[in-house]
Amino acid sequence: MHNDFTFVEGGVAAAEGFIASGVLNKIKANRTTYDTALIFSDCICNAAGVFTQNRVKAECVKFTKKQIENGRAQAVIMNSGNANACTGEEGYKNAEKEAEEVSKRLKILKGDVLVCSTGVIGQQLPVQKILDGLDKSVSLLSKTGNVEARQAIMTTDTKYKEVALKTQIGGKTVTMGTMAKGSGMIHINLGTMLSVVTTDCAVSAPMLEKALKLSVAGTYNCVSIDGDTSTNDTLMILANGMAGNAEIVSEGKDFDSFCAALDEINTQMAKKIAGDGEGATRLIECKVSGALDEKTARVLAKSVISSSLVKAAFFGKDANWGRILCAMGYSGAEFNPDKTSVWFESAEGAERAGFTDFTGEQKGVKSKIKVFENGVPLNFDEVLAKKILSEAEVTVLVECGDGNACGTAWGCDLTYDYVKINGDYRT
Amino acid sequence: MHNDFTFVEGGVAAAEGFIASGVLNKIKANRTTYDTALIFSDCICNAAGVFTQNRVKAECVKFTKKQIENGRAQAVIMNSGNANACTGEEGYKNAEKEAEEVSKRLKILKGDVLVCSTGVIGQQLPVQKILDGLDKSVSLLSKTGNVEARQAIMTTDTKYKEVALKTQIGGKTVTMGTMAKGSGMIHINLGTMLSVVTTDCAVSAPMLEKALKLSVAGTYNCVSIDGDTSTNDTLMILANGMAGNAEIVSEGKDFDSFCAALDEINTQMAKKIAGDGEGATRLIECKVSGALDEKTARVLAKSVISSSLVKAAFFGKDANWGRILCAMGYSGAEFNPDKTSVWFESAEGAERAGFTDFTGEQKGVKSKIKVFENGVPLNFDEVLAKKILSEAEVTVLVECGDGNACGTAWGCDLTYDYVKINGDYRT
Repeated sequence: MHNDFTFVEGGVAAAEGFIASGVLNKIKANRTTYDTALIFSDCICNAAGVFTQNRVKAECVKFTKKQIENGRAQAVIMNSGNANACTGEEGYKNAEKEAEEVSKRLKILKGDVLVCSTGVIGQQLPVQKILDGLDKSVSLLSKTGNVEARQAIMTTDTKYKEVALKTQIGGKTVTMGTMAKGSGMIHINLGTMLSVVTTDCAVSAPMLEKALKLSVAGTYNCVSIDGDTSTNDTLMILANGMAGNAEIVSEGKDFDSFCAALDEINTQMAKKIAGDGEGATRLIECKVSGALDEKTARVLAKSVISSSLVKAAFFGKDANWGRILCAMGYSGAEFNPDKTSVWFESAEGAERAGFTDFTGEQKGVKSKIKVFENGVPLNFDEVLAKKILSEAEVTVLVECGDGNACGTAWGCDLTYDYVKINGDYRT
Repeated sequence: MHNDFTFVEGGVAAAEGFIASGVLNKIKANRTTYDTALIFSDCICNAAGVFTQNRVKAECVKFTKKQIENGRAQAVIMNSGNANACTGEEGYKNAEKEAEEVSKRLKILKGDVLVCSTGVIGQQLPVQKILDGLDKSVSLLSKTGNVEARQAIMTTDTKYKEVALKTQIGGKTVTMGTMAKGSGMIHINLGTMLSVVTTDCAVSAPMLEKALKLSVAGTYNCVSIDGDTSTNDTLMILANGMAGNAEIVSEGKDFDSFCAALDEINTQMAKKIAGDGEGATRLIECKVSGALDEKTARVLAKSVISSSLVKAAFFGKDANWGRILCAMGYSGAEFNPDKTSVWFESAEGAERAGFTDFTGEQKGVKSKIKVFENGVPLNFDEVLAKKILSEAEVTVLVECGDGNACGTAWGCDLTYDYVKINGDYRT
């Protein structure tokens, strides 16, 4: 489906009728770049979201889950620097206050404002700072405001993360854009990290929710940075219908096209997030083929990219494939080690997680090396292996020999900088 | 039950009739200390074992599981430097060769020899080196050979791990000793790391197995270093009956006393292993109370000590309790964050994981600080918190307010050295 997309600038404000802004409210005293993003649609949107499965949910997550229940939204306010998690009743009221003040200024319903936070857990949100900055947030809303907005939600991210594309749905040109923050406290258990998708495609709220759940299973839910599922995981989609296509209200060709576009941008974001994991020096992709079924393939791939030992070996450019087999072995998924083969693959000079390339495609000559074949270790060229493992994107290929199912997962290496970043995050 | 034990020297050779040795066979070319341990009992032992649940099992694990099926054993040969895992048929035959040659030299049955390996995965075991050293291994067997044996099984361990105690069972003085290797690729899923327990207590093989399974649930299975379940996990117990007590063949007072002794040494070993995790600077203990049931309490405690973010915060001496709540939240266990309270506790100058102290008890004045109470963050003394978190053993106390059940788990901090050690382990 890749050829059906044209990648464009504009991120979360690319789709017709969407505008965005980012301002600096000093939610963390030492912040020097933007920390509060606002997204607004000219008209009311159908909306859906998936949220963290952590039993400890941030107050803004509890609030926004309720807000989106009616399948409608028109604005999203997001901040970094404070997660508004483990903050009790006071925290919940703070999220509510934000929605109220945003609705007044934008002259929309309070019920149509979604609220997201990310940052340190367990400190009260300095909500007044956000409210004091709201007039500025509103006055700066524009079609190019995605540039500040994508920056405003970054925490330990070293790069902003956004994608936008145009595609044909129901005979109309539809635009879809997204931005996300990633980096840490990221694991594979539904609706990872903060992410907003905006589109001018006309889709009913139930079909939006269906598309979102289908898409996350093979994209965001296949990313792990550190095995920690956040308290604030949120992925939202807003569709304002301004592309003028016949509203998608059931499965069919249009729904499939919509899902393909959503999968494309979510996959790119998943890779961007994995490649920019806290302290990461490279993206690790694990592609499992020949598995009994798709679930098995994904469980195996996720176990490989989640293993601390595999991750540390990648940091050391060490072709320690035994740890890959080990991680598959404790995943709980069915496979036969004696029928399994493993390769490492990379493309020379690949751009890390496609940061400079909207298509996310690898460039350069691909090299591949087989290290394990049908349960038997192979003698392999350690020099070539090291070269492959030194690239910015490395793929582990696993063939199980059990069936025809495939699955992919994305992670990153475990580095000194991960430890440094997380050794003293609060101060 | 603590007062019923007298801690003694001798480790795995402390019990009547057991002798041990350690020799250097250069299984890894650059090894300078012992790498092959042999344990022998004067008479045949009842025996039981628990093994890794990893689907990828080392060849020696497959072999030893079969050997121990009849509930008997008389000797154990163990090596470090090579795990004999992912080595196929050749690896299995190598394990078998070891058993055969050991049995010839000790004039016992081949079926009574257990074989364990630990080290790098995916390289053929240089078995001839072990066989060439066997005459020396046998000739050095002695009551003080535990000193070399405990050293021979160490991989990235910085300290040897052994405990031995005497206690009264059935009117007789019974001795029980153990040694283990720990350090990396250690997670909570049954029978972690390599460990042998020897005792002169008379216990039937079925009751040995029962005691072992009961004990690991609250000891070895509550330790995590890095979330990776090894391919070689093995915990064995050999009981030769030379203490002269009436054989324990059913539950009752004697069985309870036996289990208490086993729990005591396994708990101490669990803490030693956690405190000496790869790169660790401190032992982290998490004690959960007020949970709905014991399983819930243990799942919560294990999730806390397994979290990379919690572990990194401990390295940074950062009282980032939000990550503790977060880890409890994604554990899957039932609890109510709004009824939960959290404290940090440590004892001044505590010896790390009791390495220099057979009793494993903390010394010095205990300090305790409450950071979260019934779902609400507390203002707390950051200076005191830092002081507490700077000690060699730190306890996280969690009270759930749901019931009366308790559970404890042990782990360590995540450090630069963990990354360094695992960044290039093979070379």
